[in-house]
Amino acid sequence: MDHDTLDDLRRLKYRYLRSLDLKRWDEFADTLAPDIEATYGKRLSFSGRDAVVDYMRSSLAASIITVHQCHHPELSVDGDTATGTWYLEDKVIITEHRMLLTGAAFYDDTYARGADGVWRIRRTGYLRTYEAVETLDPSWKLTANHWATEDQPA
Amino acid sequence: MDHDTLDDLRRLKYRYLRSLDLKRWDEFADTLAPDIEATYGKRLSFSGRDAVVDYMRSSLAASIITVHQCHHPELSVDGDTATGTWYLEDKVIITEHRMLLTGAAFYDDTYARGADGVWRIRRTGYLRTYEAVETLDPSWKLTANHWATEDQPA
Amino acid sequence: MDHDTLDDLRRLKYRYLRSLDLKRWDEFADTLAPDIEATYGKRLSFSGRDAVVDYMRSSLAASIITVHQCHHPELSVDGDTATGTWYLEDKVIITEHRMLLTGAAFYDDTYARGADGVWRIRRTGYLRTYEAVETLDPSWKLTANHWATEDQPA
Repeated sequence: MDHDTLDDLRRLKYRYLRSLDLKRWDEFADTLAPDIEATYGKRLSFSGRDAVVDYMRSSLAASIITVHQCHHPELSVDGDTATGTWYLEDKVIITEHRMLLTGAAFYDDTYARGADGVWRIRRTGYLRTYEAVETLDPSWKLTANHWATEDQPA
Repeated sequence: MDHDTLDDLRRLKYRYLRSLDLKRWDEFADTLAPDIEATYGKRLSFSGRDAVVDYMRSSLAASIITVHQCHHPELSVDGDTATGTWYLEDKVIITEHRMLLTGAAFYDDTYARGADGVWRIRRTGYLRTYEAVETLDPSWKLTANHWATEDQPA
Repeated sequence: MDHDTLDDLRRLKYRYLRSLDLKRWDEFADTLAPDIEATYGKRLSFSGRDAVVDYMRSSLAASIITVHQCHHPELSVDGDTATGTWYLEDKVIITEHRMLLTGAAFYDDTYARGADGVWRIRRTGYLRTYEAVETLDPSWKLTANHWATEDQPA
């Protein structure tokens, strides 16, 4: 097995998820192939890096805290392309509406190594096992929030 | 270190958990050694592959959504046997009764490489740090469910 | 890439978190460099192994159940020092007060290989994306607790 490449692919996914949850859109964009095809659930499909980045940037304002963690990598490499399955657990806190979304899904990704030698996500999609929404308990209160400001404290 | 084997062992555990949570019982069965000894908590013990598979298949109907994710692999290989410690986080949603079970545990596994060269789980058990049950909040509502049908929508 | 060292570093972090959540303070202490600098959030900073261990031992009594799981390792090795970023998900159950703390954070660690050839944590700190507290639902009830005693059942 080519353990260097397996490591590169895992780091690619971690960079994608870290920059997504930290809302660092330039770093996020660089994890995507220019011609990416991304499907998130049944309702959301995007073609091309700009479409994905624009959607994320406009949907995930500072009032929305996301936690996307991917586990259980099952990766296969074939030259300059690779495929991977991951087990996602996600949590989205919509602070303004005191709503919490939780879910789990199996991601199926395709990766491509570009002319610059860097791996990027070429295709991504998932099978949701479940997703649920709930109103946060009246006692629930933020004690830290990376996006808090003086106008909008934690 | 034999990184190929470490990778094989991680994938074995991921396949076991993926097929469990997707209720794919034939694929699940093939991750178990024929003479597996499995202990899940203090009350549940099984000897042999059929006993484990029969229990899971009959207990985990479509109305029960499970999320079993294992983290922190600490693996040791010794020829055709290996041992592993993992940190489980699990969630079981019993949709009919609107109950949620959550917990964490440290798995202790033994693996064996069969005559066909494939690693399987030979012994599995865990130390539960905690487990809790609760009734889902009245506002909690499924927005996606892989096992939903027309008769039993999400 | 030096995959043996990457594996050593991952196991170090897993041992640190396992011994923390199992309250095994001697094993926990041995994962820390004698001159560790540890910062947990904005309010808690410690210099030296004894300061960290004393704080954890006195804060995390049997009535406090912790789950600290770290994901997404992004590690770099440079001789006998190394750095790592991890994505933490944590949960703290304060059983006496029926309080639950949940959160996520990105850890930034520095590791050092000692004269005995063993890697230990030299510096650790994190950027919290969020942390929240809530009162556990009246229906929430422990069904297993590794620290339960006759006087203090689960």
